[in-house]
Amino acid sequence: MTKKIILGIDPGTQKMGFGAVKIENNKPSLFKTHELKLTQISDPYRKLREIYVKSKEQIDLIKPDEIAIEAPFYATNPQSLLKLGRAQGVAIAAVFSKNVTVTEYSPRKVKQSIVGRGDASKEQIAQMLKSLLALDTIPNNYDVTDAIAVALCHFYNRNRLNISPKPYNSWNSYVNNNPQRLVSFKDSSK
Amino acid sequence: MTKKIILGIDPGTQKMGFGAVKIENNKPSLFKTHELKLTQISDPYRKLREIYVKSKEQIDLIKPDEIAIEAPFYATNPQSLLKLGRAQGVAIAAVFSKNVTVTEYSPRKVKQSIVGRGDASKEQIAQMLKSLLALDTIPNNYDVTDAIAVALCHFYNRNRLNISPKPYNSWNSYVNNNPQRLVSFKDSSK
Repeated sequence: MTKKIILGIDPGTQKMGFGAVKIENNKPSLFKTHELKLTQISDPYRKLREIYVKSKEQIDLIKPDEIAIEAPFYATNPQSLLKLGRAQGVAIAAVFSKNVTVTEYSPRKVKQSIVGRGDASKEQIAQMLKSLLALDTIPNNYDVTDAIAVALCHFYNRNRLNISPKPYNSWNSYVNNNPQRLVSFKDSSK
Repeated sequence: MTKKIILGIDPGTQKMGFGAVKIENNKPSLFKTHELKLTQISDPYRKLREIYVKSKEQIDLIKPDEIAIEAPFYATNPQSLLKLGRAQGVAIAAVFSKNVTVTEYSPRKVKQSIVGRGDASKEQIAQMLKSLLALDTIPNNYDVTDAIAVALCHFYNRNRLNISPKPYNSWNSYVNNNPQRLVSFKDSSK
């Protein structure tokens, strides 16, 4: 019997979701979840430090065999995008500090893997998680459901392929495969 | 006699500069520099891991009392901006892991502190560093000079104010004080 814990992380600058699934006999079940609220912290460095410290804490607590990160790469404005990049960077560094393998999935890939449609709503994701993980109720904390979803997405992608995971791990190949995600950009300060 | 080491870091996705100055009797001198080349690494995770590991190594080696980071917040396109944010986040996490205080300065603030003009060229920065640090030659590695410059900028700002540093530590206040740095942004995928 093989047993494995996959931890999904959904990093953000306002809230962070952690969702771990346990895989036993190739069957996933919900293991642990955690939500980290960051809205109270206004100083950006304190916020990043909190992401770093709490991510390490969760990894220590959950002791995952593998980690999957949901990584969007767009935001409503460049400032948010840079902040998002920093939050992702700090969370990724927390994973590095623990020497666990990490795989990254775009939100679209996660939705596709769980619901079968890249444009699925958060409600649809939650509904599907209830069914896939045999939960009693539909989870309604969407930071946590996003994190569970990316963990499960990682399981399905490893599992179906039955080889080493095929995540989006090259920026260029991802961008080439997802031209619709490219955003135009103009620096008005020039 | 007080002695202090300030390490300046200029994080980037292609190259990273490290430049440390030693402050003795309130006089700065060049202590150590290091350049980290990242162009050979194509996998973005390997690149981030390298930034994390090597930043920690440099901090262990240089044992700074304080760290200053040069942090631009614009790039030629959103993808570069997210990558830059991630590189900054990973470098900042490396500092967190060592429990050293970190202060962040915009490139404009660094140039203003060293040359007196926010739009100074890299050549002017290098020329000024030669004079300020009594170097024999003008340094010509601009990743390293940027790093030395942010360390020195931190020294001057602490020193002149003679109080705790007044870095840009609030995103909102920074953006409010630098409206010319705001860039327009349009998501063409919508």
